[in-house]
Amino acid sequence: NHSVPIAARVTVSKDESRDFMAVFPDLVRDVTTVAKAYNCSDAAKWFAQALQYNVPRGKKNRGILTVLTYKNLVPAQDLTPENIKLAQYLGWCVEMLQSFFIISDDVMDNSITRRGQPCWHKLENVGMTAINDSLMIENAMYAILKKHFSHLDCYVALMELFHEITFITTCGQSLDLLHSNRSVSEFTMENYKAIVENKTAYYSFYLPFALALHLAGYKDAEAFRQSKTILLEMGNFFQVQDDFLDCFGNPEVTGKIGTDIQDNKCSWLAVVAMQRANVEQKQIMVDCYGKKEPAKIERVKELYKELGLPSTYAIFEEESYNMIKTHIQQTSRGVPHQTFLQILNKIYQRDS
Amino acid sequence: NHSVPIAARVTVSKDESRDFMAVFPDLVRDVTTVAKAYNCSDAAKWFAQALQYNVPRGKKNRGILTVLTYKNLVPAQDLTPENIKLAQYLGWCVEMLQSFFIISDDVMDNSITRRGQPCWHKLENVGMTAINDSLMIENAMYAILKKHFSHLDCYVALMELFHEITFITTCGQSLDLLHSNRSVSEFTMENYKAIVENKTAYYSFYLPFALALHLAGYKDAEAFRQSKTILLEMGNFFQVQDDFLDCFGNPEVTGKIGTDIQDNKCSWLAVVAMQRANVEQKQIMVDCYGKKEPAKIERVKELYKELGLPSTYAIFEEESYNMIKTHIQQTSRGVPHQTFLQILNKIYQRDS
Ligand SMILES: [Mg+2]
Ligand SMILES: [Mg+2]
Ligand SMILES: [Mg+2]
Ligand SMILES: [Mg+2]
Ligand SMILES: [Mg+2]
Ligand SMILES: [Mg+2]
Repeated sequence: NHSVPIAARVTVSKDESRDFMAVFPDLVRDVTTVAKAYNCSDAAKWFAQALQYNVPRGKKNRGILTVLTYKNLVPAQDLTPENIKLAQYLGWCVEMLQSFFIISDDVMDNSITRRGQPCWHKLENVGMTAINDSLMIENAMYAILKKHFSHLDCYVALMELFHEITFITTCGQSLDLLHSNRSVSEFTMENYKAIVENKTAYYSFYLPFALALHLAGYKDAEAFRQSKTILLEMGNFFQVQDDFLDCFGNPEVTGKIGTDIQDNKCSWLAVVAMQRANVEQKQIMVDCYGKKEPAKIERVKELYKELGLPSTYAIFEEESYNMIKTHIQQTSRGVPHQTFLQILNKIYQRDS
Repeated sequence: NHSVPIAARVTVSKDESRDFMAVFPDLVRDVTTVAKAYNCSDAAKWFAQALQYNVPRGKKNRGILTVLTYKNLVPAQDLTPENIKLAQYLGWCVEMLQSFFIISDDVMDNSITRRGQPCWHKLENVGMTAINDSLMIENAMYAILKKHFSHLDCYVALMELFHEITFITTCGQSLDLLHSNRSVSEFTMENYKAIVENKTAYYSFYLPFALALHLAGYKDAEAFRQSKTILLEMGNFFQVQDDFLDCFGNPEVTGKIGTDIQDNKCSWLAVVAMQRANVEQKQIMVDCYGKKEPAKIERVKELYKELGLPSTYAIFEEESYNMIKTHIQQTSRGVPHQTFLQILNKIYQRDS
């Protein structure tokens, strides 16, 4: 009776995913070889396990997005096996960066599971060592960049991009941590946007795209600026959708049962609910949000419906789609529109 | 009645320290300005506090070593205020890197105090946020490099050096963590050396020196290689000395009471004791090492004396000093010997 995102599940094709996976062992070998060269073979062995457990287990959307974008950006004759491999390596660097963020976030949040398996730090022989493992992953990434990209023009730009995006993400994480114990009555749309943009959108959307631009030889700062605007808008929408699906998605499709309400998450639904609520409704949110009792969780969901959030979401989805499409059409620096549209359509059709 | 390192306490002069401190606020301003530009002013404010609490509180030996080495390497006419400031900024980058390591190490070890104040993560409003704060410090460092060094020839080498040293240090930390619960009967000199070199010597000794070489315009790979050998030898000796002073130093001079024995540390004394011990003495080590009871700690100390470790140490100190001096005299790639000797003499005269 209320709108949920439409359409067939569009995911990365099996071939794309298999090709991408195929190069991962190269990189494990590269970085463990570096560690071994410092008389750290025990550490290298341990590190290989940490990489295997943490890096390739997710959906790898960010890594594959890097490769697909690159393929859209360069003319067919430049799509040599060697260039494709470079794009895949960059995709794996994004996946490594993400693993580094996730492992340390799970320690900070004391999370239990991730991607259907215990969090790395929850394994009996890991514990707080997870922190150092995440740092090894972060810094091994630069060993990969040096080994495979230092002969290229874009090398400095790649390093600077990873530095900048990592710093932005830690700033977003810091904002999120500073606000994590706040009462729902203090949630604001401004904070919501700042957290989402910095903590998630930059590294999940802008980073893969910008890496592909660099590898494809783009140098025009304005092309990067225009792309950034669009990719951050997509990242913002993606998170709003994620928040919506957490409450109103079909667990049989999403594969997970949402917990944002009991976790006191500053979600888009909670922010909009507080904007819309009258005094009594605000009191319901204060009384029930962030509490574990099923009746309170249910009361919040009911309130969301009373406030018409499902249709607000549907309108937001459509407006956001149209706005991003317009911005894509307005780009003018030689990045093929198809490159953006492909990502846009993947996101807007997802239901998980 | 046993040898302790001789001589007057040689520290960095007050002027050197004051000049170095004077530029720190520039860098706090630089990096908080970056964070603010991403709509993260709350995070920027928090970050400024984290920097103030953690970065400038130590002895700053590594940072000042960077500056002193630079001053020794370049001709007087190149010692412009601008160049000195660049050397100081690099010195602060080393101090930031060290803070990043220390904050996360203290979380992993669940330590209580550091440099005479509570560890950052032990402050009531910090906790696990400390992990993210350490990451902000690590990555803000690259924003400083970009802002102040990207116009220089050595920029790529500086970034690569920080990447490599950070990765090496995490490898050393990993080795240390893998061995931290081992019994004293498994300690070996080989492991001891690998841990010390990777976890401490690279970032504490080689990094400051190599940064100064780069800033001074050195490009000859062999000059770096020769320097690395010498600086790592100094780093190894420094740690052996630290381990010796932990047990046999004068707390009124060192300013701290050693705890390596009860902490089950893989220290140089324990490694050599196990090499020297007969079956009965090994059993004493197994029974008493890593235990909290004062009588057991005392028994280990007695055993160290029975095994003649203080004089073994004195011999090691002298041999190590002579070996390093010989290696310095054998260097041949234009790095002034005085640059090495200054550091050597500072280390060998310390008693705290
Ligand atoms: Mg989390
Ligand atoms: Mg978190
Ligand atoms: Mg979610
Ligand atoms: Mg420690
Ligand atoms: Mg430790
Ligand atoms: Mg010590």
